Amino acid sequence: MGSNHHILLDHGSGGEASQRFVKEFVLKFLSNPFLEKMDDSAELIIEGERWAFTTDSYVVDPIFFPGGDIGSLSVNGTVNDLSMQGARPLFLTLAFILEEGLPMEQLSAILESIAATADLAGVKIVAGDTKVVPRGHADKIFINTAGLGLIPPGIHVGVENARPGDCVLVSGSIGDHGLTILTQREGLRLQTPLRSDSAPLNKLVEALSPLGPQLHVLRDPTRGGVATALNEIAQRSAAGIRLHEDALPFKSGVLSAAEILGIDPLYAANEGIALVITAPDAADAALASLRLVPESRDARLIGEVTDELPGKVLLQTRVGGTRILPMLSGQQLPRIC
Amino acid sequence: MGSNHHILLDHGSGGEASQRFVKEFVLKFLSNPFLEKMDDSAELIIEGERWAFTTDSYVVDPIFFPGGDIGSLSVNGTVNDLSMQGARPLFLTLAFILEEGLPMEQLSAILESIAATADLAGVKIVAGDTKVVPRGHADKIFINTAGLGLIPPGIHVGVENARPGDCVLVSGSIGDHGLTILTQREGLRLQTPLRSDSAPLNKLVEALSPLGPQLHVLRDPTRGGVATALNEIAQRSAAGIRLHEDALPFKSGVLSAAEILGIDPLYAANEGIALVITAPDAADAALASLRLVPESRDARLIGEVTDELPGKVLLQTRVGGTRILPMLSGQQLPRIC
Repeated sequence: MGSNHHILLDHGSGGEASQRFVKEFVLKFLSNPFLEKMDDSAELIIEGERWAFTTDSYVVDPIFFPGGDIGSLSVNGTVNDLSMQGARPLFLTLAFILEEGLPMEQLSAILESIAATADLAGVKIVAGDTKVVPRGHADKIFINTAGLGLIPPGIHVGVENARPGDCVLVSGSIGDHGLTILTQREGLRLQTPLRSDSAPLNKLVEALSPLGPQLHVLRDPTRGGVATALNEIAQRSAAGIRLHEDALPFKSGVLSAAEILGIDPLYAANEGIALVITAPDAADAALASLRLVPESRDARLIGEVTDELPGKVLLQTRVGGTRILPMLSGQQLPRIC
Repeated sequence: MGSNHHILLDHGSGGEASQRFVKEFVLKFLSNPFLEKMDDSAELIIEGERWAFTTDSYVVDPIFFPGGDIGSLSVNGTVNDLSMQGARPLFLTLAFILEEGLPMEQLSAILESIAATADLAGVKIVAGDTKVVPRGHADKIFINTAGLGLIPPGIHVGVENARPGDCVLVSGSIGDHGLTILTQREGLRLQTPLRSDSAPLNKLVEALSPLGPQLHVLRDPTRGGVATALNEIAQRSAAGIRLHEDALPFKSGVLSAAEILGIDPLYAANEGIALVITAPDAADAALASLRLVPESRDARLIGEVTDELPGKVLLQTRVGGTRILPMLSGQQLPRIC
């Protein structure tokens, strides 16, 4: 049988292969208006209130890394999926799949981190589940969190809402999480050690709420990175996006690690930054609000939405040329989150 | 380090060790009124409406078995956790952890089964996630489903609500799922092959809704089986439960398999039956209602709640003696669901 008859690592990459897998395979069986939107969370209208409901499993390797661990990641990731729908995260469920033999002190550290992160984000963990599988049938610990949040009136964000003229902002430096995990996994020693950016984004979203309908798109560039997330926005909004290379915030350590590992940091996963797209008039106010929140004090303008090449992302390079930035395709970086 | 410093299979057994693990370890870190109840789902009060919110991961081995597969199990299991809270299951999330190399045709079959089961139960799958881990880091497929359901006014069930005099009913035959999985795993060939009872229980719960406040407890005896579930009810209600051995419905194939494998079917997992405890006056009406629903046509009275030995379950044997039926302790039956 050909490789197309089996699950490949790429099917979980968050890039083009993942998208195709969901669109052409999963949705063949499970099709409904909620899933067809292919958003990270579903919007449920209940008694006139809009709720966001989402799920994510976390399989990151290693389970402890500078800046976080699988516990903080599993809380932040789901808080962020809700936040990117414009919702205020309220309730989380927490499910463990544990490998027999996992040291209790590691589980203690993860639980401590979950509790602290949930406190920081202001969410309550309300239900849980624990399964244990025999040694060798899983790898230490996998976590699933599902989340429920309330979307305030007046907030209507969506990856399909970018309009030519809109401004593209990013809330912090790019590529930190992905490069941290990869340097840890490769045992790479850098002069300035990298740290994951893993953080809850709900405070940053709350700071943007005065923008109301001028806030068009929120998106956390996790698996597949900034380039893939912007491609999704461009495609779903049928608009072009132009990025300015000289405006992109990268830490120097991230750039060095990326060069050594041969990774483009625009495709590396982030776990604590948001892409924010606003109406042109609202960009200054958005930046000012973002910079008051610790998680987004380095927010900046990195590009604009255009009517050239709808569905594509163009990178305007430092020397003045442009190149198309495609969606992540065929890069195998498993277990990044 | 001693074994008490590592995760053991027992921590996921659903029995005494699982309970202790959650109570004495997990709740040390994550304590709030929702989790302290140790129910399978949380009750959230939102704008005056009562919602049930739950999560479960499924790691069953084998992934296909007579009567179901990991897909149908993952829908039914979460539908049932919501139903046992008295809720009408409405929305599910679905998250896959896939092992690289899983044949696509197996995933197709599982997705087909998920879609059919969700249709049957009348729930919508509204959000999802797919992670892929390298070969050897998981076992074929693990599924998490989280669920959201609405509790109708007038329904107030809880494992703490059993009162002396109440009647204990079971909606169908006992031990089918657990013994099916074990016979499959052991390659045991029986004259009459066993089938898992995996089924959604929400219709059965709807049929009971006219009972209103006379419906005291609903509980699906999954991991740990009927004996463990009844012990939880007895403990949480501070009441005794007396079971009549001659009233317990077992299929003859289940009894034979249980004898060969040395398993007490009262401790085997069930995935499509409910324990129903009602006020004494309401038992006949409950039985009549249950018997009109295909999933519970064989419902019957199996015991009563007493004021003798609060917190304990007594089995009145066929020959007229009694023995205490403890909670499951130390039996290692991993990956039963």
